[in-house]
Amino acid sequence: MRIYANESLPLGPHPPQWESFITLSNSRNAPSSSSSPVPSPMLADYLQRREKLIAEDRALRIDRVRANYSTAELKADEVVRSIRAREAVSVWGVNHENVPHPYPGMEFLNAKEIIVKTDLFSKIVSKMPKGGLLHVHQNASVEAKTVLDLALGHPAIHIRVPGPLDAASLETVLPKIQPVPVEQYPATDAIGITDLLYTGGWVPIKKARELFDPALGGPAGFDKWVLSAFVINPSDAFKTYNTPMKIWLKFGSTFAVTDPIIRFVPIQKEYLRMCIRSSIEDGISYIEIRTSFFKKYILAEDAKTKLELRELLLIFREVTNEMKAEMKAKGREDDFAGLKIIYNTLRIISPKELEAELDQCSRFKQEFPDLIAGFDLVGHEDGAECKPLIDYAEPLLRFAEQHPDIPFIFHAGETLGDGTAADMNLYDAILLGTKRIGHGFSLAKHPKLMQICREKKIAIEVCPISNEVLRLTSSMPMHPLPIIMNQGIPVVLSSDDPAMFNSMGLSFDFFQVLVASEVTGLLTLGQMARDSITVSHVLALVSCIV
Amino acid sequence: MRIYANESLPLGPHPPQWESFITLSNSRNAPSSSSSPVPSPMLADYLQRREKLIAEDRALRIDRVRANYSTAELKADEVVRSIRAREAVSVWGVNHENVPHPYPGMEFLNAKEIIVKTDLFSKIVSKMPKGGLLHVHQNASVEAKTVLDLALGHPAIHIRVPGPLDAASLETVLPKIQPVPVEQYPATDAIGITDLLYTGGWVPIKKARELFDPALGGPAGFDKWVLSAFVINPSDAFKTYNTPMKIWLKFGSTFAVTDPIIRFVPIQKEYLRMCIRSSIEDGISYIEIRTSFFKKYILAEDAKTKLELRELLLIFREVTNEMKAEMKAKGREDDFAGLKIIYNTLRIISPKELEAELDQCSRFKQEFPDLIAGFDLVGHEDGAECKPLIDYAEPLLRFAEQHPDIPFIFHAGETLGDGTAADMNLYDAILLGTKRIGHGFSLAKHPKLMQICREKKIAIEVCPISNEVLRLTSSMPMHPLPIIMNQGIPVVLSSDDPAMFNSMGLSFDFFQVLVASEVTGLLTLGQMARDSITVSHVLALVSCIV
Repeated sequence: MRIYANESLPLGPHPPQWESFITLSNSRNAPSSSSSPVPSPMLADYLQRREKLIAEDRALRIDRVRANYSTAELKADEVVRSIRAREAVSVWGVNHENVPHPYPGMEFLNAKEIIVKTDLFSKIVSKMPKGGLLHVHQNASVEAKTVLDLALGHPAIHIRVPGPLDAASLETVLPKIQPVPVEQYPATDAIGITDLLYTGGWVPIKKARELFDPALGGPAGFDKWVLSAFVINPSDAFKTYNTPMKIWLKFGSTFAVTDPIIRFVPIQKEYLRMCIRSSIEDGISYIEIRTSFFKKYILAEDAKTKLELRELLLIFREVTNEMKAEMKAKGREDDFAGLKIIYNTLRIISPKELEAELDQCSRFKQEFPDLIAGFDLVGHEDGAECKPLIDYAEPLLRFAEQHPDIPFIFHAGETLGDGTAADMNLYDAILLGTKRIGHGFSLAKHPKLMQICREKKIAIEVCPISNEVLRLTSSMPMHPLPIIMNQGIPVVLSSDDPAMFNSMGLSFDFFQVLVASEVTGLLTLGQMARDSITVSHVLALVSCIV
Repeated sequence: MRIYANESLPLGPHPPQWESFITLSNSRNAPSSSSSPVPSPMLADYLQRREKLIAEDRALRIDRVRANYSTAELKADEVVRSIRAREAVSVWGVNHENVPHPYPGMEFLNAKEIIVKTDLFSKIVSKMPKGGLLHVHQNASVEAKTVLDLALGHPAIHIRVPGPLDAASLETVLPKIQPVPVEQYPATDAIGITDLLYTGGWVPIKKARELFDPALGGPAGFDKWVLSAFVINPSDAFKTYNTPMKIWLKFGSTFAVTDPIIRFVPIQKEYLRMCIRSSIEDGISYIEIRTSFFKKYILAEDAKTKLELRELLLIFREVTNEMKAEMKAKGREDDFAGLKIIYNTLRIISPKELEAELDQCSRFKQEFPDLIAGFDLVGHEDGAECKPLIDYAEPLLRFAEQHPDIPFIFHAGETLGDGTAADMNLYDAILLGTKRIGHGFSLAKHPKLMQICREKKIAIEVCPISNEVLRLTSSMPMHPLPIIMNQGIPVVLSSDDPAMFNSMGLSFDFFQVLVASEVTGLLTLGQMARDSITVSHVLALVSCIV
């Protein structure tokens, strides 16, 4: 098995791959600078000082650190800029049905149907290598439609609602969907959940779909209803729950609906396969996946035996190895370096309970040293029920001392707050020695912390679409990413919960970043992809496995 | 006439004024820190390092520069924090009719009716001294309702629309309102603009109001229709024109409708009086008012003679002196230090035309040295018709060399762009030696420029409500102000175009800033008020007048 001995291939931009882009539109060069008359000595001097100032201002950016770009790389960057400039007018400057105010970097849930039709997306961004996906939640990593298909494909999966669904209740009722043991299966003549005689029991999901009232859309209506409970819809984000606090009500409910489907061994395995396969197809070469150990079991194939969480780790190991073998069999072993887990629990537990979690994490690390990459606490940082990191300082300090092999990779500063508990988490994450920061949305407010992140190379896992859908920013141009980048802080673009945001892969996040700036270009994205490897644990993986 | 010989009185917070706040709610102290058990040595050490890091991170903030706050000041700050914390729950945490998602710092146009009812606004912020108002456009400085009253009060002011207004056209037709010379007055039996026989001629505005179709609301319906053309309405900002580009269509139209009313000597004078009086009542002690010299005349009382713009300066001098005398007569001479003009023209002119403007500005400075405070170029920086500063570099460089007495005070970076022409204006504003920066919304992206602003004390005129209504930010918590403040850059809060935003005075801008942060408090706002004097030309004013 070939493992990357260094980060040069194929995880970053390099001439052979870029050259294919150049042929796309070599008739569309960036406009040459206009042939203005020779400037006066005063103006010439001014222009020189201006150039110098701009260079100084941008000196810390990752795309300025390398000086030796090849001609092909520079050319590819220029071509991409010209496509972006063209589509800013031809795509984003014209009216679109159902999209009231199109512009580059606009709200993703409204923009998606436009984005996928652009050349910039379909010919460039979706095809470029992304490096590592370092911030994604395991139970939000497979497309909603696929999860529904997985559920429909397993006879144990049943659905129930409080009573017969009708047009009105369809708008508000969330389904319960989960595996049930065979002895709880209803009689084969089960009636559907829209049937007036339905009294609220379990119905096989496949049956419920088939029997769904044609007046409510039949099977297609069923799919639409269920999927709207799996994802955040535009009307959720931009209307019903249009604040950073309220949207978490809907966000939380999507996990409540889908989690019981996934935490079932046969589906869990297939789910993970799907996650890895779709990631590879999007140009992702390596994954560090945040996995929750908050619930204490996973359900066995019989849908009643509660298996220890060690089983979950066995599944991760098995599926990862299987996927690597599959890629090798296709002669594509270079396209997938592997997967690691960031162990996480919810920041609602007590400091005492945290100690038990930390113990479990370290036991898992001993048994699965190649799999456990770090430890994190997750949840809605602004939520009243979530504790700030400072509440856990004591056990975390002890753990850091005893387990230098398990770094913290904390969520922190995923907030609009200024001086709120969620914002203050950034101080603690850094003081506790976090290796990277999940989100760090409010980091831009902290000059000293930015300096530390720059000097210690603490990378920020920036999740553009997540931040926007979860209402921390209203569009990509409003996002603080350029502030962070221009301070010379390493950034890895991440998808967070792509299943809920309908933003599978990293291409959509890369796209939104690319169109929202005139400074950022293909060279920037390429360097970000490279950096995602540098700040990951993939090299540690190499040393473990080789 | 008493003039402030220094900035200590009454422009900043000082104990006697603050003490009155303390009595407001001294039963509501901030919660005392919980009596947790003595921390372990490890935790104690951690807490100490944490305190140090937080202090380092905030060291550059203006509210940390002074160390000698009095007990009364500290107490006042604490009281204000407790009121804010209480109302975050009691006001912003409950449902309000017609306001779907209330929260502190939410979009101003929806929040205003809630804001005015808070104790924080009515008892604290509206009563505190604000220092100088340093960024306000002269023709956007008087409340819309007052402008309508001024128009209704002058017989020369007439109105016209293309044809009879009805319920449908009311939604889209903008009125033309302006003074007309007496020989153009219609016959006294003028018919109203909603009359089916109306053919599109001038109607005295008072008459048009009286005759407004009762089916369309009569005079109240007339007022509603006219005022909706004077201001940006919630439906404009959050629906019809909900992007930073589109909102300027509406914004521009409000000026087009109101400018002809104001550029008329008798109304101009009264308009300026109203501006100064209402500013003083809001705690503003000094004004630097951006005044456009783009149009080449002001209309005389006869509504046909086009007077030179020198007349405008005479009006400013006359009204300012009159207002100062009025304040002195009330024994309140300390409450108004005066008014100066920042000469501005539109950044749509050619570099050649700019030279003529600069010449005129310097001539005015010679004749009115006490009145002209600086020079600026204004307009929609992102707009296709607006030129970037670099296009004007040559004449501006020459002017700066020849006229060190007329500083540039440029609008720059009023944009979401990253590397766009509007964003790049920041480099030029600074290189050209701007004394302050109007907006500087995109400054946070520029580490080197922030360093220069900090070191050279180039203040940023931050206009919170303007930025939000004009869609650069969706709410105050999303605003980059804390980033700028924490970098140690001087900030003056400003209202920009309060007439169009329905945000008269500085109280609303101060309020939005105060509720959107847990770090910022009364001491911060007080220091900002002081700083607004330091970075103004009021001291130069003193030396000129005394």
